[in-house]
Amino acid sequence: MKRIRDYGVTVGRLKTGERNKITDVKGVTVGHHTLKEGECQTGVTAILPHQGNVFREKLIASSHVINGFGKTMGTIQMQELGTLETPIVLTNTLSIGTAADSLIEYMLEHNPEIGRTTGTVNPVVGECNDMVLNDIRAQFVDKNHVRSALTETTSDFEEGCIGAGAGMLCYSMKGGIGSSSRLIELSHGVYTLGVLVLTNFGLLSDLSVNGKPVGRELAHHLTEAKEARDKGSVMVIVATDLPVTERQLNRIIKRSVTGLSRTGSMITTGSGEVVIGFSTATRIPHEQTGALLKASFIHEEEIDEAFRAISEATEEAVLNSMVTATPTIGRDRNERPTLPHLLEKYQVSLT
Amino acid sequence: MKRIRDYGVTVGRLKTGERNKITDVKGVTVGHHTLKEGECQTGVTAILPHQGNVFREKLIASSHVINGFGKTMGTIQMQELGTLETPIVLTNTLSIGTAADSLIEYMLEHNPEIGRTTGTVNPVVGECNDMVLNDIRAQFVDKNHVRSALTETTSDFEEGCIGAGAGMLCYSMKGGIGSSSRLIELSHGVYTLGVLVLTNFGLLSDLSVNGKPVGRELAHHLTEAKEARDKGSVMVIVATDLPVTERQLNRIIKRSVTGLSRTGSMITTGSGEVVIGFSTATRIPHEQTGALLKASFIHEEEIDEAFRAISEATEEAVLNSMVTATPTIGRDRNERPTLPHLLEKYQVSLT
Amino acid sequence: MKRIRDYGVTVGRLKTGERNKITDVKGVTVGHHTLKEGECQTGVTAILPHQGNVFREKLIASSHVINGFGKTMGTIQMQELGTLETPIVLTNTLSIGTAADSLIEYMLEHNPEIGRTTGTVNPVVGECNDMVLNDIRAQFVDKNHVRSALTETTSDFEEGCIGAGAGMLCYSMKGGIGSSSRLIELSHGVYTLGVLVLTNFGLLSDLSVNGKPVGRELAHHLTEAKEARDKGSVMVIVATDLPVTERQLNRIIKRSVTGLSRTGSMITTGSGEVVIGFSTATRIPHEQTGALLKASFIHEEEIDEAFRAISEATEEAVLNSMVTATPTIGRDRNERPTLPHLLEKYQVSLT
Amino acid sequence: MKRIRDYGVTVGRLKTGERNKITDVKGVTVGHHTLKEGECQTGVTAILPHQGNVFREKLIASSHVINGFGKTMGTIQMQELGTLETPIVLTNTLSIGTAADSLIEYMLEHNPEIGRTTGTVNPVVGECNDMVLNDIRAQFVDKNHVRSALTETTSDFEEGCIGAGAGMLCYSMKGGIGSSSRLIELSHGVYTLGVLVLTNFGLLSDLSVNGKPVGRELAHHLTEAKEARDKGSVMVIVATDLPVTERQLNRIIKRSVTGLSRTGSMITTGSGEVVIGFSTATRIPHEQTGALLKASFIHEEEIDEAFRAISEATEEAVLNSMVTATPTIGRDRNERPTLPHLLEKYQVSLT
Repeated sequence: MKRIRDYGVTVGRLKTGERNKITDVKGVTVGHHTLKEGECQTGVTAILPHQGNVFREKLIASSHVINGFGKTMGTIQMQELGTLETPIVLTNTLSIGTAADSLIEYMLEHNPEIGRTTGTVNPVVGECNDMVLNDIRAQFVDKNHVRSALTETTSDFEEGCIGAGAGMLCYSMKGGIGSSSRLIELSHGVYTLGVLVLTNFGLLSDLSVNGKPVGRELAHHLTEAKEARDKGSVMVIVATDLPVTERQLNRIIKRSVTGLSRTGSMITTGSGEVVIGFSTATRIPHEQTGALLKASFIHEEEIDEAFRAISEATEEAVLNSMVTATPTIGRDRNERPTLPHLLEKYQVSLT
Repeated sequence: MKRIRDYGVTVGRLKTGERNKITDVKGVTVGHHTLKEGECQTGVTAILPHQGNVFREKLIASSHVINGFGKTMGTIQMQELGTLETPIVLTNTLSIGTAADSLIEYMLEHNPEIGRTTGTVNPVVGECNDMVLNDIRAQFVDKNHVRSALTETTSDFEEGCIGAGAGMLCYSMKGGIGSSSRLIELSHGVYTLGVLVLTNFGLLSDLSVNGKPVGRELAHHLTEAKEARDKGSVMVIVATDLPVTERQLNRIIKRSVTGLSRTGSMITTGSGEVVIGFSTATRIPHEQTGALLKASFIHEEEIDEAFRAISEATEEAVLNSMVTATPTIGRDRNERPTLPHLLEKYQVSLT
Repeated sequence: MKRIRDYGVTVGRLKTGERNKITDVKGVTVGHHTLKEGECQTGVTAILPHQGNVFREKLIASSHVINGFGKTMGTIQMQELGTLETPIVLTNTLSIGTAADSLIEYMLEHNPEIGRTTGTVNPVVGECNDMVLNDIRAQFVDKNHVRSALTETTSDFEEGCIGAGAGMLCYSMKGGIGSSSRLIELSHGVYTLGVLVLTNFGLLSDLSVNGKPVGRELAHHLTEAKEARDKGSVMVIVATDLPVTERQLNRIIKRSVTGLSRTGSMITTGSGEVVIGFSTATRIPHEQTGALLKASFIHEEEIDEAFRAISEATEEAVLNSMVTATPTIGRDRNERPTLPHLLEKYQVSLT
Repeated sequence: MKRIRDYGVTVGRLKTGERNKITDVKGVTVGHHTLKEGECQTGVTAILPHQGNVFREKLIASSHVINGFGKTMGTIQMQELGTLETPIVLTNTLSIGTAADSLIEYMLEHNPEIGRTTGTVNPVVGECNDMVLNDIRAQFVDKNHVRSALTETTSDFEEGCIGAGAGMLCYSMKGGIGSSSRLIELSHGVYTLGVLVLTNFGLLSDLSVNGKPVGRELAHHLTEAKEARDKGSVMVIVATDLPVTERQLNRIIKRSVTGLSRTGSMITTGSGEVVIGFSTATRIPHEQTGALLKASFIHEEEIDEAFRAISEATEEAVLNSMVTATPTIGRDRNERPTLPHLLEKYQVSLT
């Protein structure tokens, strides 16, 4: 599958990680469960933040709401305690209850002390609304689908119309899952920041590819464009091995909006745009040890490289979600073209 | 069932509504579904904010996190859009997924346009952790229980160990559901503010009843007191017919912490303490009409009466949850005394 | 003075107001007091939100912190009460105390009841750091300069190196004051949204003009580019006559970041980036009347046009601040080129 | 001067530090400059967080707004960067500009690199409104007064009607400066948390002393009580040597509201109630070193002791501000009784 760099588009100036995906951050894996048949165009994507027991060894984490017209769960506790203690699950809006329930079951199985000798667990579930292509009212996702995404993760995951991205739209074309990564080179080490997006936002004519107003060009050709109002959204998952406090991490993940903006987003109202980030650099033990905890973190004056990294990686991840998307016919035979298809049909170049 | 006023305790100086419950706010009803048998000591409580279609006629709403070690869902959208569009469901922590799913189904049934001609819906679910008395890992709550609480609501609901309150603790004794209300007398009218709490917080020795250190007295007697650490939480639901903006409503509901504090809470860490409030004074139509919307609201200089009302009603609602509680033996034959029982046993007075 | 449209650059698709400035919002005026001589390259800019007594007739207002490495005053009260009750004053970072003091005096003069029969007043002062060109340690701004800016306002104000913008930088070139406006056409009327920016941020190579990577082109030529780290900031003042609640206004002004991002900003750390917005549509009386207040506001589904308006106007205002800037030699004979000068010298086009 | 413990009132159960003041936290000193003559009843209080160069060695810090009807400066940057880099200055509301200006000058003198080789500085200034007893419009405070408070600090400072507290009111009686401290005993060490309050809030009849409704008793006697509306406010400054992250510190300082509530506050509208806290346990160097920073911090499960400490210390500090206050006749011969005077006059006991 061609990614945006295969079209000659290089976003920004920083080096990418080896795969140019969120899984360039060591320990992070991603799993999909995809449901694509007729009216059913949806699925689940799970992100494992590390390969140990995340409940017992929590990661410093933070969330940021760009636009709160969304139903993401688990952010209240993340902000209060600054930690992530479960995998992150993404799915369609009306399946968040099922996803949370399945994630809770998964956590209970792996942690018999929950609800007995220790408290409860905070499931983190994000969502976008895939109602155009998917019969979202049918609530096709069941708990086994969620479990499947959680248990079959890999560092070499696919992008496009897969997992939670199966039925999503982006800039009035087909969207879905995209990813990218950047290296952060500081005097004391080289770190990695990776982004995974679930894209479901934007109007065709607003699409900008690395500064080029591609959407406007396409819209001229595309008289059949289904340019209704944008009721979309986007989930941005950020992983890094940079040692940061939760405050610093929050500053970093907030900057994802600069990358979204450069693809043309004006962050329309009908849109849940939520960012969730974690750092794998420090593990916070669930149980207290009787000693003080210790953590390393960067000096604030070093943070600009991370700001650049997330801006570039977010922009590129969105573009990857679009060029890896495949033609989809869904509910009521609704369909959306893919960006590669339109580029070819109208002989428009991305560069 | 005796309430706190029946013990001679009068909290504050404002008048109460007729029932001295949240349902004194016209249109508000409350339903419980209770599961009390052996290891299973849990349930569901539902609050209907008005008797019409809440999705189509939304209410101005706001939420406030006192302590974010909790899993409440739906607050991101409430803060962004300033509205409530579903009933509020309360249950145990590990049943929030099920509760959300059931609430979504309920909303889909009542609103066939969701996911078709309009977007999705934002379910609002709050929780406390009843693991001491309830086998919370068993996830006893199913979707029918939630539906039952939603469909069998009344203005004359019960307090104590009922609904979501079945297995909760308060100040190391039995807690649960409590309620109270106050009248807000302004020059242009008399308004009502009501509070419903789901209590599950506090250490015995911290309990203060209208200033009297009752908890300290009881702790002297109670050598058998199971005074472990407080891992509790509290949900505070606030209804009013006072015409307010969402900003004003947020200011009001934030003041619930003064009432909680006066019962002795120091807001311990292991505790989700979340307030959700709504005003029935203005309905926001789901569909745009092509005209500007209009709303009335109080002048900021009139708001102190509402601050006093929520402070008093919250304090009294917590006390009501304790004196209406009934003895409960639950998981592993864990039990907690009730406040009335201890008062009688040790001949301690609340006044 | 040529503005960005005179270079053939048209940002976005919405119509501009008559002047294409913040003063297209009726009642808004802007005053400058400029200090430009040798080491002293600084000044004051004042924005009057309406021409009446702002303390007695407050406007609905909101602020948003994009990056909090800044010293803006007055936002705590603005968020709590949702109103603006003074003009907004902009100056250099180390003169905020003086500016606040002068603004307080101005308010005391116009409102003899302050501190007597009513409470105090909340001065709103924003700032950027002009230390490269201005000897900021000398604190050149005195209270008379602030008063002068407050009393000599006009709807036809200048842009560029004037007022608070005298010594500011933007994308390693000269920055300062810029402005732009957009019309918001809704079914019930045509409204105006205007933006004024004080620009002091960005690295040369990041500058993007309407998608064109002009900064990168210039950086190739400009081996002498003083491209140190960006320690800049930006103040964004937003005025509109759109009837909105403070929550809606906050949603709108948050979107200014999309316009900043499109000029190339990645919101570097050493930067106070603060947005302050107000709506002239509703006046909130200082004194209570004994009756409920009433306000009109748009339906949330109409807000996207305002989001687009602020995005476009912010982007254009930044560009206007750069093309209207004039060559400046300041402290220690530091100087920065202007964008028009570099474009001509290296024969680079903006289109 | 008798403090509240000299009246037989013991708040809470934790041990106090040696002085039972904020200066029990090693390195913290407090200075006052008092102006008390006729119409002029005001002043300045300065808190030095450590005795080194605070700009070059910053402390982890956080602020929390209980009620934002106030003009406190410097909190935007504190929240963004999580550090305090200047002393904290308290004064009357209309003198914040002067106080900021004087604090900036003080910082410039001690740090010649500000505005030259490094950026600017973030002055932190808090305020309450002393207009009843002080002719606040006269803006009596000048820059030398502020300097005097900054340079003459001590660990053995006075409480009551001194410094910024000269003209303040509390529960319709005389308020001012109060302080208290608590020890936090954890397995890895004993730490100290101290609170300094500037009190200016509350209605007589609401005053509660350790649960006793003293205000109600006094109000019965006091037919002459000038019980108008409460337009007060309170500043709460919190110091600790507990090793915490800025997020943990924020959780701690938020709990000060429980102590305020127990004295009877319902947090009335016309009130700036702002908390500013810092930890002396970790110093953050202004300049980056090229290495990662390291910090220790407590496990979240240990934080309840700090919550209890701040609750108790805040409650006791408020009471200390009242019992150490002295009779004051000010502007227009306005006067307010002191609590000790009323207790004696009406033979009311605090216990």
